Amino acid sequence: MIAVIKQGVTDNQIENLIAWLETQKVHVHISKGEYNTVLGLVGDTTNVDMELLQNLEIVENVMRISEPFKNANRKFHPDNTIVDVSGVKIGDGHFAVIAGPCSVESHDQILEVAGAVKQSGATLLRGGAFKPRTSPYDFQGLQADGLELLKEAKKVTGMPIVTEIMNANHLPLFEDVDLIQVGARNMQNFELLKELGRTKKPILLKRGLANTLKELLMSAEYIMAGGNEQIILCERGVRTFETYTRNTLDLSAVPMLKELSHLPVVVDPSHASGISRLVKPMALAAAAAGADGLMIEVHNNPAKALCDGAQSLTPAQFDDVMRGVTRVREALEL
Amino acid sequence: MIAVIKQGVTDNQIENLIAWLETQKVHVHISKGEYNTVLGLVGDTTNVDMELLQNLEIVENVMRISEPFKNANRKFHPDNTIVDVSGVKIGDGHFAVIAGPCSVESHDQILEVAGAVKQSGATLLRGGAFKPRTSPYDFQGLQADGLELLKEAKKVTGMPIVTEIMNANHLPLFEDVDLIQVGARNMQNFELLKELGRTKKPILLKRGLANTLKELLMSAEYIMAGGNEQIILCERGVRTFETYTRNTLDLSAVPMLKELSHLPVVVDPSHASGISRLVKPMALAAAAAGADGLMIEVHNNPAKALCDGAQSLTPAQFDDVMRGVTRVREALEL
Amino acid sequence: MIAVIKQGVTDNQIENLIAWLETQKVHVHISKGEYNTVLGLVGDTTNVDMELLQNLEIVENVMRISEPFKNANRKFHPDNTIVDVSGVKIGDGHFAVIAGPCSVESHDQILEVAGAVKQSGATLLRGGAFKPRTSPYDFQGLQADGLELLKEAKKVTGMPIVTEIMNANHLPLFEDVDLIQVGARNMQNFELLKELGRTKKPILLKRGLANTLKELLMSAEYIMAGGNEQIILCERGVRTFETYTRNTLDLSAVPMLKELSHLPVVVDPSHASGISRLVKPMALAAAAAGADGLMIEVHNNPAKALCDGAQSLTPAQFDDVMRGVTRVREALEL
Amino acid sequence: MIAVIKQGVTDNQIENLIAWLETQKVHVHISKGEYNTVLGLVGDTTNVDMELLQNLEIVENVMRISEPFKNANRKFHPDNTIVDVSGVKIGDGHFAVIAGPCSVESHDQILEVAGAVKQSGATLLRGGAFKPRTSPYDFQGLQADGLELLKEAKKVTGMPIVTEIMNANHLPLFEDVDLIQVGARNMQNFELLKELGRTKKPILLKRGLANTLKELLMSAEYIMAGGNEQIILCERGVRTFETYTRNTLDLSAVPMLKELSHLPVVVDPSHASGISRLVKPMALAAAAAGADGLMIEVHNNPAKALCDGAQSLTPAQFDDVMRGVTRVREALEL
Repeated sequence: MIAVIKQGVTDNQIENLIAWLETQKVHVHISKGEYNTVLGLVGDTTNVDMELLQNLEIVENVMRISEPFKNANRKFHPDNTIVDVSGVKIGDGHFAVIAGPCSVESHDQILEVAGAVKQSGATLLRGGAFKPRTSPYDFQGLQADGLELLKEAKKVTGMPIVTEIMNANHLPLFEDVDLIQVGARNMQNFELLKELGRTKKPILLKRGLANTLKELLMSAEYIMAGGNEQIILCERGVRTFETYTRNTLDLSAVPMLKELSHLPVVVDPSHASGISRLVKPMALAAAAAGADGLMIEVHNNPAKALCDGAQSLTPAQFDDVMRGVTRVREALEL
Repeated sequence: MIAVIKQGVTDNQIENLIAWLETQKVHVHISKGEYNTVLGLVGDTTNVDMELLQNLEIVENVMRISEPFKNANRKFHPDNTIVDVSGVKIGDGHFAVIAGPCSVESHDQILEVAGAVKQSGATLLRGGAFKPRTSPYDFQGLQADGLELLKEAKKVTGMPIVTEIMNANHLPLFEDVDLIQVGARNMQNFELLKELGRTKKPILLKRGLANTLKELLMSAEYIMAGGNEQIILCERGVRTFETYTRNTLDLSAVPMLKELSHLPVVVDPSHASGISRLVKPMALAAAAAGADGLMIEVHNNPAKALCDGAQSLTPAQFDDVMRGVTRVREALEL
Repeated sequence: MIAVIKQGVTDNQIENLIAWLETQKVHVHISKGEYNTVLGLVGDTTNVDMELLQNLEIVENVMRISEPFKNANRKFHPDNTIVDVSGVKIGDGHFAVIAGPCSVESHDQILEVAGAVKQSGATLLRGGAFKPRTSPYDFQGLQADGLELLKEAKKVTGMPIVTEIMNANHLPLFEDVDLIQVGARNMQNFELLKELGRTKKPILLKRGLANTLKELLMSAEYIMAGGNEQIILCERGVRTFETYTRNTLDLSAVPMLKELSHLPVVVDPSHASGISRLVKPMALAAAAAGADGLMIEVHNNPAKALCDGAQSLTPAQFDDVMRGVTRVREALEL
Repeated sequence: MIAVIKQGVTDNQIENLIAWLETQKVHVHISKGEYNTVLGLVGDTTNVDMELLQNLEIVENVMRISEPFKNANRKFHPDNTIVDVSGVKIGDGHFAVIAGPCSVESHDQILEVAGAVKQSGATLLRGGAFKPRTSPYDFQGLQADGLELLKEAKKVTGMPIVTEIMNANHLPLFEDVDLIQVGARNMQNFELLKELGRTKKPILLKRGLANTLKELLMSAEYIMAGGNEQIILCERGVRTFETYTRNTLDLSAVPMLKELSHLPVVVDPSHASGISRLVKPMALAAAAAGADGLMIEVHNNPAKALCDGAQSLTPAQFDDVMRGVTRVREALEL
């Protein structure tokens, strides 16, 4: 870490700062320039509170050289992590496709969709039971009943199930859930992350709507610091000024996250754009960019199911996406 | 609500849609244009799931005419709400100044700051006990001990206290807290909002880093729908591409929120910029823009307290801000 | 176009508005709701100034149904446009790869790079002669001399050349340039666009750093309205809050632009991220997403050429990207 | 300037880099850390191309200590600049109010508005003659005729005039214009900036929709590097995700720009929000934040003039704003 000291700061002030820094077990190198003094902090700077340092009156600027995440950092864990979700592997060449409806609606719906997506090659079944909705008046999901229906679909199809948690108090209900999803709006719900760090469940951590990759990795670090290292990162679009698409899918996040971290990275092209016509091209692009998996919304009967959005695919459309994704991965020998 | 139907949609499909809409207790007017058919939804459309409608294959576009928030909506509650925080009123001409340190650090620190800000005219004492930090390795606050120190400061100074909650399970600890703060990162932690809707405590709801004013009001609506109407909205800066300031304070949020809603609106100039030199001009600007109050970080001993950031003011600087704010409000007869 | 009238507006005011609208050759349908009156504008609304209408005191909201661009609109021109750049076709299945150095530096440099990229399959040669730089103290390009060097490379290799124009007064110098580039910072330099509309040269129009797809198409419309319909659109990343990458490449722009418009769409993965390691995955992703071409920076001697940035590839790296892109396009039968 | 070298870089590579840097007349200090080597560049680093350096394969990160603008930098010019616009002073306590219609429409219109705003205390008359419009089909202004009408209004009222230039070729038409405006969309039209650097006219430089304060100052530097130091900076709102307001006015830009630079800073509250109801609170806030002036749209006959937008004030509303602004400035002894 480099800290640039402001002009006009006294030697005494600098010495006080260095003394304080050294209590945090870092060595400090001083370099006096014509205009500014620069301190180089050497050693394990993970515990140094960069924001705090930046905010000191006498400090002009601070720059990290090593990243503030340890457990999630590829530098310290060069090998790709493989997350095992009840027998389905993700990462280091294992490509996973998570598919299913936005919301679990009924026994027949979830079983029909589960059967269809399995046949097309999906390896994990998703379905929302607890739904985060902007409005308190919108449908909040079938909740505990939805979880029961998911478990039935798991029994019938043998597919591990993935669903979102919104409240750490619900954890006992998630005992049979194979992969617990943290939604974009809870990516910095640190209390929830800490609780999940104490479980042994694999976690699917979605990037927040306006969070940087570094913040995403710091949230992964919250879970890992608690002892749970089974984390899958998920890019699902960020908020920009563009209005045609609901969010802007940031596919450069895939190679960037894989460079910074050893954790697997999947892409959710359904939520990013909010437009079903864009799911196929974005799924193909994500596969070509090297993603370790995809998360795609599929519904069974679009004609009847008014609740299924334009971001969902029919089983036939999903099957078509899967063929394309397989061809791209084969062509690139991924 | 207006729904524009795509070209080439059959009459039968439109009739099905109308039949479904009418089950939701809205009347539907049809208007056939040369190119498109437009449906006008009349009645209480608050319960119509706009996103769901937007996502239907046959729908081109949807536009709300009336806002989807009811309880927070000025149209239905024309008079300004006055929130009473243990005797301190906020809103409708009552101006409140919430001041105190970023984090409660010690008995002496919180009492010293509390005494100083009270003397300068602050009406509420703030202090962080549970701190949301991006990194799990950064200081997380004194937690329950911090709450105890705040209560002591309240006993000595008589000032009602304000502090952030991060976990609904902590609510029993907040029994003596007068105004419960929901931080920016939890603005869409809907489970927490629902729990707070069941309490009788006034809530200070901060705008999320990348949330629209409409989303802020929908989050207020979550709390109000539960029966708790004592809400103060807080603008604290949004995330943009600018790098000199930590966030970009959106002061147009003040008149805009006050037009859309009857709830009081306060401004936090300390967190927005992250730079203490900008606190005074932004506090004056917020007062001039018609804010119902301010939330300002003040620390006692910047020379010693390394933990106090560049965004905090000294008591003397705070006193200077208070004089300026008073002069602006008097000049504008606010 | 739909215009929603505010509550409390008199019939007289509405009649005045309708009379004014009808002078603009649109028919107006009135629909009176319980709360609001809605006007449906039917006919050619391209000339109606939507912002002006939106800004009228009596208007609550305006929504376009048909897009405000005519010449660039796929609705009116369903077939894909093929742009012919001195014999090299782009669009409707014709995939073009534009490659070359960021800046033309010397005779040897441009000839060496041109030869190398041609051999790997590039079809057009790029090279900056006039460089838009944020700082007046940074290298501004070889300017007219750079154009001469480009023309020499064209003579030797037979590749059509692409370079950026920053000033309409330079047009005489661009007589032998085959494809004129409008850079991101000039996307809304309307005076330049108008001048280019009067030429017969194909134009490569780059999306601005913070411009919507609609604004990009409106800028294409500026050129097309002048009579020049040979336009290639280019996605090159937008400005967001993310700091690891210089910009955020918005690949959903590819299918979205191709749905809205008949113009070919190419992607520049070099400028988007500013990081050479991301060029390959993003180029593959762009091809998989259905782009009509790529624009990639290549330099010859990275060891010596200090001016070549981390966003440039070596010829060998470029060759590797080309093989991958070809495999992806073959796999998808594009 | 600090450059951090990547791990694993050889001493030979570092020596080559230092040799190259020293050709640019900076001294280089080396500091070897446990993990990284850090170079400190001392001397005049204004001419070092930071982006180029950042992009080198062997460089991990670069941080400027001193800003890359010289002429606009307060460090080198501590005293406030006063810009003299044909006798009207702006800056260092001289507060200027620029008012007038969005577009010059007719002789009567501009004279009526000019008379009204002068009476209320405006010191400069604005009016658009060349209008930058997103659509080629929208009204482009009266152009040269509009300039003539402005000059007439100047003759009658004695107020200096302000209007936007979009094309350096139009400069001869601007000979009698007192203050030439560069619009947000042309803030990085570097060719135009260079031309304006060669004139002796004061320039009103508006911040681009998605440009940082540093980029704004670099654009001012383009003009100043040419010899023209008469520049007024203008904050007019930046593009964000918020949809209620057209742009987000960034008032922290006022104190921040005044800290970084000696140039005067004015605020345009009309264009920022696009909503006339927000002009007054934002004008008062801008004055309270320490702006050196305001730029406000005023039209004369809102009932008839359909072209006047919701962002324009009536003369009576403008008069009310002026009274408020005066009271705020008096209260703060500005």
